Amino acid sequence: MINEKIAQAKQICREKQIDLWLTFVRETSSTPDPMLDLILGAHCTWPSAFIITAAGDALAIVGTLDMQNIKDHADYQVIGYVASIREELLNVLHKIDPQKVAVNYSVNDVMADGLSYGMFLMLKDYLTGTPYAERLVSSESLVAALRGRKSRTEVQLIREAIRETLDIFDNVTKWLRIGVSEREVAEYIKAQVAQRRLEYAWDETHCPAVFTGPESAGAHARPTGRLIEAGHIMNIDFGVRKNGYVSDLQRTWYFRRPGEKVAPAAVQRGFNVIRDAIRKAAEGLKPGMLGWEMDALARQYIIDAGYAEYQHALGHQVGRQAHDGAGLLCPRWDRYKDLPFSVVEEGQVYTLEPRLTVEGHGIATIEEIVQVTKDGCEFLSQPQEEVWLI
Amino acid sequence: MINEKIAQAKQICREKQIDLWLTFVRETSSTPDPMLDLILGAHCTWPSAFIITAAGDALAIVGTLDMQNIKDHADYQVIGYVASIREELLNVLHKIDPQKVAVNYSVNDVMADGLSYGMFLMLKDYLTGTPYAERLVSSESLVAALRGRKSRTEVQLIREAIRETLDIFDNVTKWLRIGVSEREVAEYIKAQVAQRRLEYAWDETHCPAVFTGPESAGAHARPTGRLIEAGHIMNIDFGVRKNGYVSDLQRTWYFRRPGEKVAPAAVQRGFNVIRDAIRKAAEGLKPGMLGWEMDALARQYIIDAGYAEYQHALGHQVGRQAHDGAGLLCPRWDRYKDLPFSVVEEGQVYTLEPRLTVEGHGIATIEEIVQVTKDGCEFLSQPQEEVWLI
Repeated sequence: MINEKIAQAKQICREKQIDLWLTFVRETSSTPDPMLDLILGAHCTWPSAFIITAAGDALAIVGTLDMQNIKDHADYQVIGYVASIREELLNVLHKIDPQKVAVNYSVNDVMADGLSYGMFLMLKDYLTGTPYAERLVSSESLVAALRGRKSRTEVQLIREAIRETLDIFDNVTKWLRIGVSEREVAEYIKAQVAQRRLEYAWDETHCPAVFTGPESAGAHARPTGRLIEAGHIMNIDFGVRKNGYVSDLQRTWYFRRPGEKVAPAAVQRGFNVIRDAIRKAAEGLKPGMLGWEMDALARQYIIDAGYAEYQHALGHQVGRQAHDGAGLLCPRWDRYKDLPFSVVEEGQVYTLEPRLTVEGHGIATIEEIVQVTKDGCEFLSQPQEEVWLI
Repeated sequence: MINEKIAQAKQICREKQIDLWLTFVRETSSTPDPMLDLILGAHCTWPSAFIITAAGDALAIVGTLDMQNIKDHADYQVIGYVASIREELLNVLHKIDPQKVAVNYSVNDVMADGLSYGMFLMLKDYLTGTPYAERLVSSESLVAALRGRKSRTEVQLIREAIRETLDIFDNVTKWLRIGVSEREVAEYIKAQVAQRRLEYAWDETHCPAVFTGPESAGAHARPTGRLIEAGHIMNIDFGVRKNGYVSDLQRTWYFRRPGEKVAPAAVQRGFNVIRDAIRKAAEGLKPGMLGWEMDALARQYIIDAGYAEYQHALGHQVGRQAHDGAGLLCPRWDRYKDLPFSVVEEGQVYTLEPRLTVEGHGIATIEEIVQVTKDGCEFLSQPQEEVWLI
């Protein structure tokens, strides 16, 4: 997989007319560059340069003590140094003489922003007096393409993580009852994760995140001792990592009050609006659309139905990370910088996850995962069609 | 512990005349700032600012969805935002009106270098037209003091991690025999780690790192299928994390050939030179010395004994990380930037880990851990006095 991605990176360098892609890092177990999982699969200690070129080179300049470890992990030509990386780095640059050097920084995309400011200052110092100081650009577009375009194997791995997650949701549904706490629901899920020897898709303090009833935090917080009551909507945001790839899904349950056969009309309607907002977005999705145009399909549908708009993006890419970076389906808010203008591309895998509040009951939210195809999209998750009744 | 460290940070701000310390981060599960373990203990998603002031404020400006999670973890006054952090961040800066703002970047110290270059550009853009754009300094000295000055509780936790590690080394010694591979030694140790429910102090692909014989990689590489032979020196570099704090220790074994009662003179002498280089360094250690002066005590001793000098630092600080950052005991090589000139301070915890090659046998290396006291140092690890014979 690592060497496949290195090969893909060389091709993307050519396509984007980037002569050389430099990933400049150090002590990556403390300050990781998110791309190293994809193009190295190991850590390094001293200042290290991973260089992939349009001409087809893959070079790693690392401290001598790291050389063997790097060789063990990926097909780089490994160059070691002892006192300073400066000389070897300049040697390589002068030899390749790139007109355009993509470097691992980006205002917009966390996944392309692994260069620390301290390392940038070090690099700038090294390049002073060379022509390359003026040839640095962000690796953003390269990284977006490399992460976004999932290979067949990568999609298969994501499907596997989704399957495990939906299985666990099925078990949760069988087990759930009024009177258990958010924390107990989370503990039940964590026991399933342990039993299946899976990892968590994100920080396990809020993976799963469990929210029941009208007073819950709603998102990104840890489960509390709040008890599930009749009349509550509960939602769970949960994903697993399996073989390095993750899922990220949300489902909505309703807990019937005595005598209720189905959910009250308000709950039903809220759920259906979310479900249909996702359908609307999936039907409208085409390669070439911009992120904000996609977001607007679901957002406008919810506003038109008379609900407050959700305060986040419609969806993000999924892959090695739950938030896999780049090409976000988000509104044109300053918080998102240029991301609303990123282009939807074939091969990308996105979540679709609008939400709305049903007053007095809780928050209805579904999160599905789709892959962009040549002319539309395909659901990788089996969509939730109805609110799940307990 | 988190709130203790926040209180300590306020005090260090006053001592160093830093009005405001800003830790500016986003998506910290992909791009963590190493200081958040110490002053937050949680992750955040959108651009987030953690602000500690000399006047005694502790403020967190985070995306609304992260607010509850941050409140659950540490005593910050939490301010939420939806569209952009800009306005709330500028509000806080204008209100506090700091003359000096320490920001989470550093050329020298990874632990103080959590600000990505993309986030720096974002911050610069926000501060354009304000007086604060010109008042930014590196948080390096603040971070070095905050990480370095271990509280009594922190030292107790490090001692615990050391105790576990030395226990495991004792078990290894009982179990070791000629003919097992480096990988089998590592697997034996990993089984002990699992049984004791410990974590690894660094990347578990080379924690433990096991090197046997004259042909081994020597450091930082993963264990191989190389078999232990009679006449080999073997060394193991290993540490565990327990309750958030780590150990990092090396020990040296010798495998006797048929008829050998003790190690050959060359092995004995190599081991003793390393042991005595550590003694020399520990005896010489005084608060106020510079990192390179400390390193030179051991380095010169080894050179004077006729061996090649080691190609790394004598020691690094240990704490929440195996490489805990700042104040390194290292030579004046460009690779180490300004670190050789950092001052040894009371309360810091350092490794001492010189090495040398015994031709035809392998690499002799010992790594001990000491804490700097008012007028010297105290060993936190029980020092290895003799080469361990198998």
